[in-house]
Amino acid sequence: MRQGTLDVKKIKEFISKKAIKSLRTIIQEQHPVDLAEVFEELTDRESIIFFKVIDFDAALEVLTELDVEKKFFILTNISPRYAFQLLNEMSSDDLADFLGELSEEKKNIILSLIETRQQSDVKGLLSYDKNTAGGLMTTEYIAFSVDMQSQQALNRLSELAPDAETIYYVYAVDSMNRLVGVVSLRDLILAPAQKPIGEFMSTEVKKVQASMDQEDVAKLIKKYGFLALPVVDDNDVLLGIVTVDDVMDVVEEEATEDMLKLAGSDEKLDTWKSSPWMRAKRRLPWILVAVAGEIISGGVINSFSYTIKALVALSFFIPVLMDMGGNVGTQSAAIVVRGLATGEINPASLWKNVLREAMVGIILGAINGAIIALIAYIWQGEVVLGFVVGIAMAFNLTLATILGTLVPFLWHRLGRDPAVAAGPFVTTALDIMGLFIYFSTATWILKA
Amino acid sequence: MRQGTLDVKKIKEFISKKAIKSLRTIIQEQHPVDLAEVFEELTDRESIIFFKVIDFDAALEVLTELDVEKKFFILTNISPRYAFQLLNEMSSDDLADFLGELSEEKKNIILSLIETRQQSDVKGLLSYDKNTAGGLMTTEYIAFSVDMQSQQALNRLSELAPDAETIYYVYAVDSMNRLVGVVSLRDLILAPAQKPIGEFMSTEVKKVQASMDQEDVAKLIKKYGFLALPVVDDNDVLLGIVTVDDVMDVVEEEATEDMLKLAGSDEKLDTWKSSPWMRAKRRLPWILVAVAGEIISGGVINSFSYTIKALVALSFFIPVLMDMGGNVGTQSAAIVVRGLATGEINPASLWKNVLREAMVGIILGAINGAIIALIAYIWQGEVVLGFVVGIAMAFNLTLATILGTLVPFLWHRLGRDPAVAAGPFVTTALDIMGLFIYFSTATWILKA
Repeated sequence: MRQGTLDVKKIKEFISKKAIKSLRTIIQEQHPVDLAEVFEELTDRESIIFFKVIDFDAALEVLTELDVEKKFFILTNISPRYAFQLLNEMSSDDLADFLGELSEEKKNIILSLIETRQQSDVKGLLSYDKNTAGGLMTTEYIAFSVDMQSQQALNRLSELAPDAETIYYVYAVDSMNRLVGVVSLRDLILAPAQKPIGEFMSTEVKKVQASMDQEDVAKLIKKYGFLALPVVDDNDVLLGIVTVDDVMDVVEEEATEDMLKLAGSDEKLDTWKSSPWMRAKRRLPWILVAVAGEIISGGVINSFSYTIKALVALSFFIPVLMDMGGNVGTQSAAIVVRGLATGEINPASLWKNVLREAMVGIILGAINGAIIALIAYIWQGEVVLGFVVGIAMAFNLTLATILGTLVPFLWHRLGRDPAVAAGPFVTTALDIMGLFIYFSTATWILKA
Repeated sequence: MRQGTLDVKKIKEFISKKAIKSLRTIIQEQHPVDLAEVFEELTDRESIIFFKVIDFDAALEVLTELDVEKKFFILTNISPRYAFQLLNEMSSDDLADFLGELSEEKKNIILSLIETRQQSDVKGLLSYDKNTAGGLMTTEYIAFSVDMQSQQALNRLSELAPDAETIYYVYAVDSMNRLVGVVSLRDLILAPAQKPIGEFMSTEVKKVQASMDQEDVAKLIKKYGFLALPVVDDNDVLLGIVTVDDVMDVVEEEATEDMLKLAGSDEKLDTWKSSPWMRAKRRLPWILVAVAGEIISGGVINSFSYTIKALVALSFFIPVLMDMGGNVGTQSAAIVVRGLATGEINPASLWKNVLREAMVGIILGAINGAIIALIAYIWQGEVVLGFVVGIAMAFNLTLATILGTLVPFLWHRLGRDPAVAAGPFVTTALDIMGLFIYFSTATWILKA
């Protein structure tokens, strides 16, 4: 592995000395992704000098990897001619993604640098929602007519290859540009030279509508192990392709989103770089909702203040009841949320799953209830207290598994994101119910 | 999209009638992955009949998709000759994965069906840890000598294509089978017919050691957008390749694992299918540890029982303090855990990250402290109580962001999995410290 072989210190030194030859030697044969990493540690001025040393093909890839601000800075600080060349060679989806993140003003500056033909492609892509197949796709696919012969197609492929996103699938279209089949490069190589594509293509093409959610697109590509998936409009006209590398990012992005949502926020990871004030502002609304929920928990304790005065030791077990309920509930929710995301859990089997998870809750509740009852008895020497805490714990954990499974499932059924509902909502609901069960049992037994 | 077009009811009907021809018509042109899904709803007996209807190439793919039990049942209930053919055509990594999940006895039954040559390949793969590059790789790669000419290579490729896992990369090896270069199929098509591979191959091949953790392999493939990555031994001898589709599974698997660990368990999602008793048993040890932790929280409250007796209203705010600390801490931890997993957060910048997140905590803590103080004052009419709760909340949230960031970071530094440490550990630690801060402040102010 040749990771981290680039010496940033040396690069900075050569830049300040304008030692262009030495720079060229250092970056020779380096992967553009590794070169892009260096830019993170360069100043704006250094970036421009370094960028100019990199040759065109690598520069194109480096540019794709850079973050929005750096990309904009470089494109507007090199010669307009070079910027024009780079922008016109950039793949349409990368370009659309880039423009989508710029302010209106900056977007127009970049658009003014681009050729008219590319412009219309990119503006078309910009019209799709970022999180759909349309937002994810590129228009640099290869499609041939069904009549084209195998050898002819291979020759044409060699010409088109440098500009295409993938040459491993070739799509077959009719005269109206409607998708009718697909041929892999493998098939093309193996087919007799004179055979028309229509005769050996596969007609059962998996394809998606431009409006399909990116998570579903990712699931399909993963399920069938595709390298790319064609995107069509309502009339089956081929619009573009989504490739496996774009989908890898989606899988990670969605997993991260699920996790952060479960932890109680829709904050995106990219805000890691934003200012603490911005990040605090994002997290605040959700926190206030949770505060409101927990004030209700406090209200439950408040309404039993007479009971607590009678037996202060009851309050010692509030933490363990709250924490266990929250943990077990969140865990059940995590299993459901990820299971739904990966497709391993089927929404059709809702009640079966709830029932099975409830069984787990009953078992965990019974065992933990018994243990905590014993601890309560030994610690405080009160048989009644042990009894109360044990019963509450058993109820609480059973409730936790049921709610933890049911809530994200129902949310999913309503077409909403299960991860949002799962975390804080389940925890807060369990806190309120758990404390109510606990103190009700206590009041009832103390009275008896 | 042609999803869910397979009518399982009809298939079951045809199976019971042994209407083989009708079955053939139904499954014609269906994707093997879709066929495999049908098996989930068939009985063992039905599976055998249905499996025999599927033609060899599709059957091979269907078999790969089936779960271990079904796979074993089918292979041992069709003719040994057919099982032999299927097993020998199966890719070595799929076969090794399958065998790795079988009991010793069942493994030997399957091994007895396989050709000796395949056996040694598979036994070799079985020797690698499942979660490493070696465990993930397949031996069905294509490697040519550096001396082979482009056209010659293309011809040989056509012959090898049906058995190879991917033909999109061709590896170049020297006489000792050491990896010296790589050529993409794209390059091969574009190169002049007589040019030896050695003259146009790329010599800067990214490669990994067989012992590399699968998560790191996935990160590399994702980072560079590769379709496959070669695996070598200490002497650079080519052992196999890891392909992007295997890595997609790893990315999802690791994300799921991170999420479940953060929710407080190392339970794998596949246990969704195991019995409630088994699942409860798996979750129990971790729960008992958390119980122990929360009993310490109870101990903190206990040691302040005199203060609570003086002001029962103090206990009303236990839920909101505990819940907010836990949520904010888990959220910080989730950001770090996912950031480390995707490589977006750099372990080198530990203190910078902790400081920034602490700033978020101070802002959130100050705002929420003020709000909760106000609520406490309005609700209970006690200025002192509002003051105490507010200060405790402010401290608690700041502490939550710091611990939530620091703990997974440190765990990562120690070479351990950050997700394990993050969830319950952080929550429990915060509960204990949060309650201590709360009651200490209260005691101090009440005394004053």
